[in-house]
Amino acid sequence: MKETTIIEIEEINPKEAVLIEGLPGLGLVGKIAVEYLVKQLNARKVAEVYSPHFAHYVLVNNEGILRLLRLEFYYWNGGEDGYDLILLTGDCQAQTIEGQYEVADVIFDYARRKNVSLIITLGGYQKEVKDTPQVFVSATDRKLLDAALQLGAKNSPSGSPIIGAAGILVGLAKFKRMNALCLLAETYGNRPDPKASKSLLNLLSEMLHIGVDLSDLEREIFRYEQMRERIRKIQEQRRMLERRRQRTEEEEKFSI
Amino acid sequence: MKETTIIEIEEINPKEAVLIEGLPGLGLVGKIAVEYLVKQLNARKVAEVYSPHFAHYVLVNNEGILRLLRLEFYYWNGGEDGYDLILLTGDCQAQTIEGQYEVADVIFDYARRKNVSLIITLGGYQKEVKDTPQVFVSATDRKLLDAALQLGAKNSPSGSPIIGAAGILVGLAKFKRMNALCLLAETYGNRPDPKASKSLLNLLSEMLHIGVDLSDLEREIFRYEQMRERIRKIQEQRRMLERRRQRTEEEEKFSI
Amino acid sequence: MKETTIIEIEEINPKEAVLIEGLPGLGLVGKIAVEYLVKQLNARKVAEVYSPHFAHYVLVNNEGILRLLRLEFYYWNGGEDGYDLILLTGDCQAQTIEGQYEVADVIFDYARRKNVSLIITLGGYQKEVKDTPQVFVSATDRKLLDAALQLGAKNSPSGSPIIGAAGILVGLAKFKRMNALCLLAETYGNRPDPKASKSLLNLLSEMLHIGVDLSDLEREIFRYEQMRERIRKIQEQRRMLERRRQRTEEEEKFSI
Amino acid sequence: MKETTIIEIEEINPKEAVLIEGLPGLGLVGKIAVEYLVKQLNARKVAEVYSPHFAHYVLVNNEGILRLLRLEFYYWNGGEDGYDLILLTGDCQAQTIEGQYEVADVIFDYARRKNVSLIITLGGYQKEVKDTPQVFVSATDRKLLDAALQLGAKNSPSGSPIIGAAGILVGLAKFKRMNALCLLAETYGNRPDPKASKSLLNLLSEMLHIGVDLSDLEREIFRYEQMRERIRKIQEQRRMLERRRQRTEEEEKFSI
Repeated sequence: MKETTIIEIEEINPKEAVLIEGLPGLGLVGKIAVEYLVKQLNARKVAEVYSPHFAHYVLVNNEGILRLLRLEFYYWNGGEDGYDLILLTGDCQAQTIEGQYEVADVIFDYARRKNVSLIITLGGYQKEVKDTPQVFVSATDRKLLDAALQLGAKNSPSGSPIIGAAGILVGLAKFKRMNALCLLAETYGNRPDPKASKSLLNLLSEMLHIGVDLSDLEREIFRYEQMRERIRKIQEQRRMLERRRQRTEEEEKFSI
Repeated sequence: MKETTIIEIEEINPKEAVLIEGLPGLGLVGKIAVEYLVKQLNARKVAEVYSPHFAHYVLVNNEGILRLLRLEFYYWNGGEDGYDLILLTGDCQAQTIEGQYEVADVIFDYARRKNVSLIITLGGYQKEVKDTPQVFVSATDRKLLDAALQLGAKNSPSGSPIIGAAGILVGLAKFKRMNALCLLAETYGNRPDPKASKSLLNLLSEMLHIGVDLSDLEREIFRYEQMRERIRKIQEQRRMLERRRQRTEEEEKFSI
Repeated sequence: MKETTIIEIEEINPKEAVLIEGLPGLGLVGKIAVEYLVKQLNARKVAEVYSPHFAHYVLVNNEGILRLLRLEFYYWNGGEDGYDLILLTGDCQAQTIEGQYEVADVIFDYARRKNVSLIITLGGYQKEVKDTPQVFVSATDRKLLDAALQLGAKNSPSGSPIIGAAGILVGLAKFKRMNALCLLAETYGNRPDPKASKSLLNLLSEMLHIGVDLSDLEREIFRYEQMRERIRKIQEQRRMLERRRQRTEEEEKFSI
Repeated sequence: MKETTIIEIEEINPKEAVLIEGLPGLGLVGKIAVEYLVKQLNARKVAEVYSPHFAHYVLVNNEGILRLLRLEFYYWNGGEDGYDLILLTGDCQAQTIEGQYEVADVIFDYARRKNVSLIITLGGYQKEVKDTPQVFVSATDRKLLDAALQLGAKNSPSGSPIIGAAGILVGLAKFKRMNALCLLAETYGNRPDPKASKSLLNLLSEMLHIGVDLSDLEREIFRYEQMRERIRKIQEQRRMLERRRQRTEEEEKFSI
């Protein structure tokens, strides 16, 4: 496999679809959001993407089956008057700039064949978070931007760079004659952050008129916060013990 | 997009043109100079360059519109007896050596189609600066070099390497059968340096007989220097406080 | 040589073969195991692989002959009712992800032409080792996995990434319509570990019904352990001397 | 320029030639040796090699003319009964493994067209040097090796890796159906080492029956050693002053 390759598991033919991307990134915010959508909407896997630009390791699942890193496309039929959704998530992003562009080309090629008219990319934005994480929006055109702003999103700080697939897909959309929207939720960024994902899902759910029940996500947020609190306490105790040990050592040193 | 791509916004057909390049580099000296020319000469944007070799992030402008990193060509019609100018600036340089060469090929291809006979590259040269930054010149041939020397430029120190687009474009010019000149102004290099850009513009303005008013640039230089002076004072205070704090800590340590 | 190249030294035409890979990696576990098989089975070298993706140095053998880094395929005819084996070992692995995929393509191409129906990759798994190193197994399908589990292998911890050729070859096997099995033995990983290789060979020998005499390997393990014991003692003495020296220095410092 | 390119300045047609390579490396040993040969034999430049795999800077010569990094081929006609020599030196080596292989291909292509039957690569071998630097030899075949051994060269330590062009050219020679010899002189490696180059030239001169006068090189060695001695003294003084300063500071610290 010398080039990024897509393998279609099931042929789908939506009349018009929205592609929502959530790959691993800051706080896993996008990935958690898209995986939640897949589960809640009961979306079916329809394609996989493999690439020599992904990291050079492979994963073993809990049945002992080994597989290459990959991206996955899921499909949800929105019915007569709704949008069809194509959900994109996966194990990783490409490791190099050139790889990011090659993978993006494969994604756009699939999107065009499946009549995608709008791409929405999800991710995190590293920042001190107060209460509910805010959502920052940027887009390829004014109209899309306004739609998100009216639903409570904030304008992305001007000049701020957006790293990785969430940015490149939106940046390239113009050349592929598609519209695109990038939604980033505030996150500390150094740990999985389902709370930030919830902010994204709230906005998405309203924007696309898909009623998604977020109560399962709330339960997960609660579990995460309990776990964090426990870890915080353990670390504090360790630091205290460490400080006591150092003081003892210094006293011994000066008493030689 | 697997390769560097140029998108022409407006078709231009100069009889003969000079291409002036100023991409981000030491002290942003070249970029500031070319952007100033674009503004003062009221040059029109005529083309954009996109590349998978630019950094893997995208920019959001102050209206929330997200776009890929790019280079931009601007055009100024010099009238009947003057030179037409094509001005090249942008967000970044290619990230790898191979990328630099690929982007240079796209630039040369455009330059040839637009009848460019001379390429001038601008940049900074890291050095202690006394009063007015000097300009160092190197070129593809003796005649061009002498022209710049007569206008006050200094010979580039022999053996000194020139890094990035400013050097590679001049180095490749020979193989593209074009003449080229590289002008580097002395700069500290670790902060935007409009003063160095002014030295370049003074020389360029005389060399190409384009009367450019530099008073706006002088105002910017003044603003920069005031800001630097303020930052310097704040840092000095911080260092003093830090030293006082350390002394106190050491005294406490020995008094345990 | 711009691409990975295979040079066939001897044409072989097995009806059906098993490919066993053991390239340099953690504890050299796989490489030691395959090299031992080559020697014990008296397998003949049948092909070499060269690549611009291997490290940029060359090796001099003990006769002064200089050669490029390479992989080597060896062949062992299993007779009428046994398996034919193709053994793959070598000096190195590819240095980049893209290189790993290019080299893997060359290996699969050869494997297909030689009617390989099963690929077994060998390697180390970094871990505290107690007594006999355990063997972890992962595979492309359930049946292969069960066969190894019944012979005493353990299930690879879920989610654990497998780095390098041992993983990528198994991961790619699915796309090449071959079955594949990955066996990793526990190893400290920072030194050649023939003991871990022995665990692999025990399992392999049973699985493939090839009676391999492991007594030579046991002798080598014994030699390694003696050597390690000696090194451990020397290091301990050094540390003691170093501590004594530091104490003396500190006393002198305080007595200035 | 997307690929390594050779530009022939003068067409030559030797009946049979020896190619001697000396590119920048440890102690610049090979480069100094080949440049000395070029000068002493009054060899003419016949070709230049440019590559996007060289470093991304350009050089300014002492006349202010800017040029890309390059390799240079020089030619010396050995007369009726001697060898014709093609000498290869340059500013740099390729920056990546893949680049090394691409550049090597261009060199071999030129060598074949010019009827090169033997390639000799020169370089340094990092080691404590006692008196006269020894020369280590490795080769593609036994006969060449013996020829060098008889002239006083030592066998390269087995298993020792040879890095860069000096090794890769010899390693690839086999596939290009050419013979090749690698000569490495002992050098400290961290400074230009004409003394090591002299060891190489002594051996080469005998081997190829070219009478090269080495007295100019001896003068240069003498100048280098005087310079080193001066630097050594200055550094020793600095260290003494530094130690005195530290002691004073510590005394002050303890007297607070």
